[in-house]
This record gives sequence, C-alpha cells and structure tokens, in this order.
Amino acid sequence: MYLDKINSPADLKALASTALAPLAGEIRREIIRTVSRNGGHLASNLGVVELTLALHRVFEIPADGLFFDVGHQCYTHKLLTGRREAFRSLRRLDGCSGFPVPGESECDPAYAGHSGSAISTALGRAAADPGGENWSIAVVGDGSLGNGASLEGLNSTRFGGKRLLVILNDNKMSISPNVGTLARSLNRVILGQRYNSFKTRVRKFFRRLPRYERFFRALSRMETSLKQAILPPEAFFESLGLRYLGPVNGHDLIGLIGMLERVKTLDGPILLHVVTEKGHGCSFAVREPSRYHGVGGFDPETGELPASGKSFSKVFGETMVRLAEQVPDLVAVSAAMLDGTGLREFARKYPGRCFDAGIAEEHAALFCAGLAGAGKRPVFAVYSTFLQRALDCIACDVALPGLPVVLAVDRSGIVEDGPTHHGIYASGFLRQLPGMELLFPADGRELASMLEYAVRRNHPVAVCYPRGSASDVPGFSPAPFVPGRAQVVRHGNSAVLWALGRELQTALQAAELLTSSGIGLAVVNVRSLAPFDETLAREFASVPQFTLEDGSVEGGLGSVLGTFLAGSSTPAGKLVRFGWPREQIPHGKAEDLRVRFGLDAESIARRIREVLCGQTENNG
Amino acid sequence: MYLDKINSPADLKALASTALAPLAGEIRREIIRTVSRNGGHLASNLGVVELTLALHRVFEIPADGLFFDVGHQCYTHKLLTGRREAFRSLRRLDGCSGFPVPGESECDPAYAGHSGSAISTALGRAAADPGGENWSIAVVGDGSLGNGASLEGLNSTRFGGKRLLVILNDNKMSISPNVGTLARSLNRVILGQRYNSFKTRVRKFFRRLPRYERFFRALSRMETSLKQAILPPEAFFESLGLRYLGPVNGHDLIGLIGMLERVKTLDGPILLHVVTEKGHGCSFAVREPSRYHGVGGFDPETGELPASGKSFSKVFGETMVRLAEQVPDLVAVSAAMLDGTGLREFARKYPGRCFDAGIAEEHAALFCAGLAGAGKRPVFAVYSTFLQRALDCIACDVALPGLPVVLAVDRSGIVEDGPTHHGIYASGFLRQLPGMELLFPADGRELASMLEYAVRRNHPVAVCYPRGSASDVPGFSPAPFVPGRAQVVRHGNSAVLWALGRELQTALQAAELLTSSGIGLAVVNVRSLAPFDETLAREFASVPQFTLEDGSVEGGLGSVLGTFLAGSSTPAGKLVRFGWPREQIPHGKAEDLRVRFGLDAESIARRIREVLCGQTENNG
Repeated sequence: MYLDKINSPADLKALASTALAPLAGEIRREIIRTVSRNGGHLASNLGVVELTLALHRVFEIPADGLFFDVGHQCYTHKLLTGRREAFRSLRRLDGCSGFPVPGESECDPAYAGHSGSAISTALGRAAADPGGENWSIAVVGDGSLGNGASLEGLNSTRFGGKRLLVILNDNKMSISPNVGTLARSLNRVILGQRYNSFKTRVRKFFRRLPRYERFFRALSRMETSLKQAILPPEAFFESLGLRYLGPVNGHDLIGLIGMLERVKTLDGPILLHVVTEKGHGCSFAVREPSRYHGVGGFDPETGELPASGKSFSKVFGETMVRLAEQVPDLVAVSAAMLDGTGLREFARKYPGRCFDAGIAEEHAALFCAGLAGAGKRPVFAVYSTFLQRALDCIACDVALPGLPVVLAVDRSGIVEDGPTHHGIYASGFLRQLPGMELLFPADGRELASMLEYAVRRNHPVAVCYPRGSASDVPGFSPAPFVPGRAQVVRHGNSAVLWALGRELQTALQAAELLTSSGIGLAVVNVRSLAPFDETLAREFASVPQFTLEDGSVEGGLGSVLGTFLAGSSTPAGKLVRFGWPREQIPHGKAEDLRVRFGLDAESIARRIREVLCGQTENNG
Repeated sequence: MYLDKINSPADLKALASTALAPLAGEIRREIIRTVSRNGGHLASNLGVVELTLALHRVFEIPADGLFFDVGHQCYTHKLLTGRREAFRSLRRLDGCSGFPVPGESECDPAYAGHSGSAISTALGRAAADPGGENWSIAVVGDGSLGNGASLEGLNSTRFGGKRLLVILNDNKMSISPNVGTLARSLNRVILGQRYNSFKTRVRKFFRRLPRYERFFRALSRMETSLKQAILPPEAFFESLGLRYLGPVNGHDLIGLIGMLERVKTLDGPILLHVVTEKGHGCSFAVREPSRYHGVGGFDPETGELPASGKSFSKVFGETMVRLAEQVPDLVAVSAAMLDGTGLREFARKYPGRCFDAGIAEEHAALFCAGLAGAGKRPVFAVYSTFLQRALDCIACDVALPGLPVVLAVDRSGIVEDGPTHHGIYASGFLRQLPGMELLFPADGRELASMLEYAVRRNHPVAVCYPRGSASDVPGFSPAPFVPGRAQVVRHGNSAVLWALGRELQTALQAAELLTSSGIGLAVVNVRSLAPFDETLAREFASVPQFTLEDGSVEGGLGSVLGTFLAGSSTPAGKLVRFGWPREQIPHGKAEDLRVRFGLDAESIARRIREVLCGQTENNG
C-alpha cells in the first residue's frame, strides 16, 4: 500500500513515478469504501483522483493555495494532506468534513460549499501578495463555471491574476447536466467535431498555398485569434484575458503532470481545461453519475442504494406532475437540481414547462420573475442554502412587485453536509419581505395541499420543507389549510409548544414523554410563519410558551412569537425557544446533531420539565 | 413643443423624422429641469435620450417588452409613455418613481433597481411565449454587464433567446469607471485601434489575392469567426451564442433607427453594442459624469450642487485614510462605488490597497474572504441594498470561517430612491450568522471609533450607517465604545426607548417632546445589535419598552429585544416597536416617509404618550 505512507504532500513528491497509478487505484478504493459506509459525494471525487495527485505532485501546497470550488470533490486532497485516518470518520459528528475546512488542515485555504466561490477567493489570496511567486489555484467544475460568482471572478483577474491558475474540471455535467451555452460549447470542443475538422481543413489549405509566405506570416500572427475563433470556449476565456490551455485528459497522470509543469513556467491568469469522467474507475458511478453524486451509503460491490422512503422532494415532484394538468400556466424552474428537488418526472412529462437554469440561482429567480410577469405560474424548486444566493432577486424582483412565484424551499433545516449547507438562515430574510407568504408543511399531505394552494395565489409564497421523510406525522390529522392559521394538534393546559413544519413530529413525541410527569403540553402546528396566527397566539398567551424549529433560533418562529408576546397587552407566559443557536452548526447525522444541541424529543421534554417545574431557568 | 404632444408611443411614431432631433433636445431640457429641482439620476438619463427614442420608434412597446437594467436611465421612457405630467413629481412621495414600476404604466414590464436583472427577466418573459413574435429588449450598461446575474443571463439564452435583444449601452463607466476585463476590452473596441487597423489590413490583403476564389469563399465562411477573433467583445458574446452587432453611435438617431430596423428582421439572441456618452448635451454632466450620476438637486444653468454637510460616507472615507497608516494590512474593497461610499481619497492615496471590484458584490465579498484568509484586513464598503446580493457569500465564506472582514454597510435605512433601494433587510439576515458583530453608530464620532475597533478584530464586523448627515447628535456625548454594550444617553423613569444608530437623534427629540406631558423617557443608544446588551435590557425590563430603528421592524432591534423580553424571567413591560413595517415602503423624501409611517419625532412622541396613558393600544 502506497497510500499508507502518505502523511503529507512531501511524501507524495518522494514517490517514484511508477507508484502514482497504483496509488490512484488505492485512493479510489478508499473513497468507495468510506462513502459506501458514511455516505458522501462519490462520482465527483472519483473523477478528480489523478488531477489532485498531479496538482500535489507539481505544486507546493499549502504555499500554493488550492481552492476547490463547491468543495465536495476534495476527498483525494484530504487523503494526501494528513487526513488519511480522519477520513474514515467522513461526515460524522466531530469527524472529517466532506468539504474543505481551514481548521482541519493548513492545506485547506478556505471554506467551500457553494458554487462559484473559488476563483474570486483565490484572486483575493493572490492580491494579498501581488509580487509573490506562489500560485493560487481554483479547481472549478464546468457547471460551476456558469455561476455568476465564477463569471464575475473570471472578469476580475486584473487583481492578482499573474499567479492565478483556473482548472476547468470538465466532466460535462454538474449535478444535473449543464444547460448554459458555455457548457454546451465546451462539450462541442471535447467531441472535437469542429476543432479537428477545422485543423484538417486548415492544414490542407496551407499546403496548397506554398508561395504566399507573407500570407503565412500573417496567418501565423493570427494563430491565437484563429484558435479563439474556432473554439468558442477559448474565445470566451481569452476575451476575458485568460490564457487557455488544453483540453487535456484528466485521467492521464503523466500528461497532466507535464502540462502542470509547463503551466508553472508561464504567467497567469491561465485556464487549463481538463476533461474528466465522473465516477471514473467505478462502473456503476460512471453509468449513473447523477445518482451517485451525493449518496447516503451503498453496497460497495454492486452500488445498490438503500431503499428510500417517501421524501418531501418526492412528494413535491409528484404533486407538481399532478398540478401540471390542473394549472395550465404552471411551469417549474430548477438551478441544476432536477433530481435533488424531485422535478425529474415533471421535466420528462412536460419538457416545455420545465427550465433548468444551471447553477445560477440569481438567474433562476429573475427568470421566474419574467415568467410570472408574463402570466405564468413559476415554481422555483431550490435548496434553502442555495436560495441564499438569490435573496436579493427574490426581494427586489419577486416580492416587491408581488409576483406569483412559488418558492419550493427544499432542505430547509440542517443537513448532514455541515455549516455551509444547513438551510437555516433564508427564512430570517424572507419573512421581512412585504407580501411574502411563508409556509412550513409538517408532512407530505400538508406539502401537497400547501403547494396546491400556493400555485393559485396572486402573490409570492415560499413553501419550506426539510430533507428526509415526508411520511404522515403519527397522531396528526391535517385540518384543511387556511391561510395564516395554525392548527392545534394536541390539547393541554400546562404549556404550549409551537412547532414549525416537520418539527411537529418531535414536538408530539416530547409532549407524550411529558404526560408521565403530569404535564399537559398543547402542541400547535404553526403552518404559516408569515402571516403568523396572532389570534391563536393571543388565546394561548397566558401559559408558558415553547417554540421548536429546524432553523436559526434568531430568525424564525421563536423570534416571531417572542416579538408578538412582548408586544401583547395580556400578561404573557415565559418563552423558551428551541432551534439552532447562533453558532457554527457542524456536519454530522441529523440525529446526532439534535442530541448535541438538545433538539431531540428527550432533551426537549427534559428542558420543558425543568422550566415548568422551576428547577433551572435561563433564556432559551 | 413636440414633447407636449407625446402621450403615448403611438404619438412618437406619428411624428415626422425631422421632429425627432428637436424632440430629443426638449426631452434633455425637461430632464435637466426636473432633476435640478427634485434630484435624481442625471448623466445616465441624458446618455440614452436618442437610444430610447429610437427603441420606441422602431419597436411596439408594450407588446415588445423593454427592460431597463438598474432602471435609473428610464426618464426618457417615462416621458414618452404617458407620464409627462407625472414626471414633474419625480421621486416625490406619491409622485413618479425614478425607476420602472409596473404599477405606473403597462410600458414598464418589471421593477428594476439593482444591476443585472434585465437580461434574465427579459428571457423569462420571452420563455413564457416561446413561439411569440414579440421582442424582449434588455438595455444594459457596460458596468452592469459584468455583474454575475447579467453573465448568468447571457449564458442562458437557450430559453427564449430567439426574440431577445440585449442593448449594450456602453458609456465606458458605470457609477465609477469599470474595472472588469470585459469592460476594458469594450473600451478598446471603441477606441477602434485594433478594429480599424485590422479592417484596413484585411482589405488590402484581399485585393492582392484576386485569383484565389476558393480562398475567398473559405475566408467568407470564416468571416464571423475572424471578426470574433479580432474583436474581443465579439468573441465573448458570440461564444455565448449571441449575434453581435455594432458598435453604433448612440446619439445618431437616424443610424440607430436604421440599425434597430435591421435587428427586427433577424433572429435573436442579438447583442447590439451602442456607444453613448453619459451626460450628453449638458456640459457639466459630460465633464463630471460620476458627480452628476445621482444628485439631490443643482443649479440647472451652472450645475452647481448644494453644499453638503459631513455625511457618514465622508466620515467613513476620512477614517479609512487615517486608519491606513495605523493598520498596515488594511485594504479597501468597493463594488463600483468608490465615490458613493467615500473611498475616493483612500484610493488616491493608497492605490495598491484599494480594489474596485465593479458591480459584482458576490465577487467583492469572496475577494475579501481571500484577502482576509491571506492575512489582510479588508473593509468592504457597500450600500445595504446591494449587500443583499452578497449575503450568501458573507454567510458561507466570511462568517462561517470567522474571517476578519469589515462590512461598512452604507445607506442602511430608507433612501429616496424607493423600495428597491431601501437598506432595511440586510441586518435581519446578518444577525443570524455566527460570530458576526453588528454595530450601528449614531453619528460620525461613533462611526470613527467603531471602525477603529472593527479593523482590529479577529472576526467579521458589520458597521451599519445611513445616508446623510453624520453631525454630532445634540445632547449626546459618546462614552468609549465597549463591545456588546449599549449606552444610556438619557435617564427617565416612565419608560425606555431603545434607539438604533442615527435614530438616537429622533429618539432624543421625542423624549424632549414628552417632558411637557410629565413623561420621563429613558433613551438608550443600542450601538451593538449583535451581540445585544442583555444586561442593560434586564435592568430596564420592568418598564414599558419602545424601540426605534431605520430598518424592517421584523428583522432588527424590535425583534431582538422582543424575543429577549419574552424569554425573560422578570415580568416585562409591554413593547412597542417603531420601524418600517412589512409592506412596500415607497420612494420619497426621508422626512415625508417618516411622517407617513409615523416615524418622525412628533409621531413617535404622540404614540408613546398614547401607550403610556392608555388611550389606545395595539401591537406596535
């Protein structure tokens, strides 16, 4: 085993060249083994094994800064930078993160998680030492390259670009296949049709014109320009002032190393186009890279994925298909997440009514505004954490004009990926916006009825639901949905627990646990955070109050109810808020995080008992 | 007067061609007259008079949709679309907005206000009717074109691009001169150096090769490609799948109309490059277009601007210059707002330490993260409303890693421009983020000391201050700044009014007004919203509580204090919150808006008196 001997990039540099290919194989097996057990990102990591090896072999990391865009493709990098042992605890609470984290290693120069951040961050690092000789390297997927932040960065290489290397990791798809013009023209290059036929034709043509030396010289001067003209991606990058190199085979280690050695002798900004295959070296991941993009675990031999229950995303997708027939103007918009958000079937059945905007959340939100302004009923299906990219467009272009755009905010709440991916901040912004209705379904039945309601409104509605099971909440029969009204799901005289969305299930469990202590806890399914049911809040105002939400405790339900109670003229019961505190919430399994932060049913019941029985007291 | 007869685009179409030039002159005079009185955007509007006339002459608006990016250049459009009379009330409360507003006219297809929204919104409109013959036209400045949302839109013309016309309104600068590679290469084209010399050389060369017909045909096939190769902006747009036309002189009405007629016969997506001059037809605006970008009023003959007092922006700029010598790692970052944010002098004195990122807030924030990660102390000076574009990058790339980036959040609070520009939502998002310190100075003295504090922290700090005067708040002597501590500025036993930032001045005025009613109102300068001074809040908890903030009443001080009080174990006094409600806050003079929404000292004093004397009661 070569991998066992690699404790730092220096160990990799000391290896014989002949050891590199076997090492790549060992790394692939280690990635497959760990991800099959712990879950994580498979296909993207298998695609960059050779690229990462070549980068560490040629560059001096961490003196040269290596920025992985999005960051979910950093596993090989972690295995090579002293985190081989830690890697076995991938994505576990207190274990190795699935993303670059400066606290884990000096070889991670920045947090990563969202698309498009690497180029600008790398530029910032380079600009901090404008005369320096160290490189800043951004590894960016072809999907991420079309993101607005990436494009702004590419347009800004004036600052710090001399030692900037952008590696375009072109695997012909981001999470879903890319849709932007740029990505499509990249694919054309790889297919080689235009490029090769042009080269052949030019060579033949030149041979027939032996006497025109002057012409040759002129053409030679124009060579770069001609290349640019025929190769659209080159034209694109070179018009932005980057020197384009490639495309090179991203699985040919010797070729890659040679090319990177050459890059080091040049001045930047340079864009190196590397063609990789998602899932490379693992047959099932190559066959279905989208399916093996992010997984919760699988059989390492066959690739078989564990059976999954009915998730909120699945209910969302099914409801959209059903609503498509009832609401002729309904259209769906996704930001490169057709599979993740459950829109695949809708896209298959209604291709003309489904728009995949690519990893371009701002564009997607503005595109929705344009659609809605022209009479359509767009539903923008997006993860909460990625919606953060579009908050300004939602505010200015959707909410202020009061356009009937539905935001289907998937992954609202914590997720296993960690701090950059927890969907716990967006509603703290959205709930300030005029006319924006904010709904939280407790289960699949509520999601369906809320969507049905939302697509028929004449104003923006955000429907926020978490990752995971949308199975019926036990002990809960949804009353018909009434705008702005909450539902009392459980009666009780001792206190009231307001639960937002799926948290209803935990709330009912906590209430059940409290019965043995003689505590009668009323449980309310809040349903609508904006508008909030102040009528019901007034009825309950005199008993002790508790709130439970899978969101930042500063921005959501606790804040809304607290402010209401403080302004209420009836004497209010004390409020204790359960939610994610204003600190960094790490990665890990949701159940582990809940226990750590006291947000599981047992912890909640215990704390409520303490508060009601006066054993301890502080401000939630 | 021709303008008097124009009540709709049809009237313009009926005019003789010879009337167009005099009409342009009348429009210019009307714009200068109105802006000199009401304030507004001068130079940008004078630059697009002919372009707007030509568009309305050739296209069928509103059947063809005309989207002005940013929107502050829509004055001619307003004068031509039935708002000639209303225009005199430009920017006044209940008057004509300075930006496109669908409610004002069916000729405004969308709200505008922020950079980069037009292309994607126009695409959405076109995609709603994919077989339709109507055009969607986006008029985008060269500064806005480098914005991430614009670039995402340009990369997405696959949906709806067939009837998409992007007009690049190239005036060689946005608010400050552009800095991106793209903008610089556009300028090269206009200078014409490469373009003209190439055309001449190619023509000469062709004449010497009369016999090679085959070669001619080959070259003819390559014509577009060659053009692309030699003209970087063409290469850029054509690699994104747009047909590039131009550049054309944006003040040559006949040429413009001819070109637009030609465009109508073609299939899109098309980019038409129009070269305009900011301030055209007004000598002082041409000479200093940045100075006459947005003005509060001026002498229409001489251009003399009213003397302005010491604004927060000015204090910020002076403090930065002073701190630059004390803090060697201090650097400044702006998003095309060196003048607006007060950084011009810093940029002049320390050019190597000041980075203008262009209208690219995401890039600017990420660039700060890169700088801070490499040991610098970046201060990102940005208007609150534009910071909304970068909230995700602030969350993931600055706050989560806890990087020492200072956000100088100018224009925090309402501004005259209206709903798309009010800076009242950002802190509702920021205050949720772990480790983010949120400070609000009451006057220039506090801004200076808070900045001095902020640039020496090891975590992110946002310092939020409004537009306008930073003069000393009468009756207030700032105590030394202590992190997380508020300052009691006025004592009183009846109730307490917590004031955020500059609102301290209004709060003290209200308190003064209440003395005659025998009400002793304590006034607190909150200073730090995160962390919030809970110790002081506990001391005051038992008296009636009031909060005053120049921000959304849902997201800020009222929410923080309300939640604290609701969770407090001591019986709390009732809370009434003064701030901007969750509804659309229109444009208008700040003092008019305050009176309308009950946020002037008199209204506040009256309401407090009512609450304390029990005359009326409801929830703030």
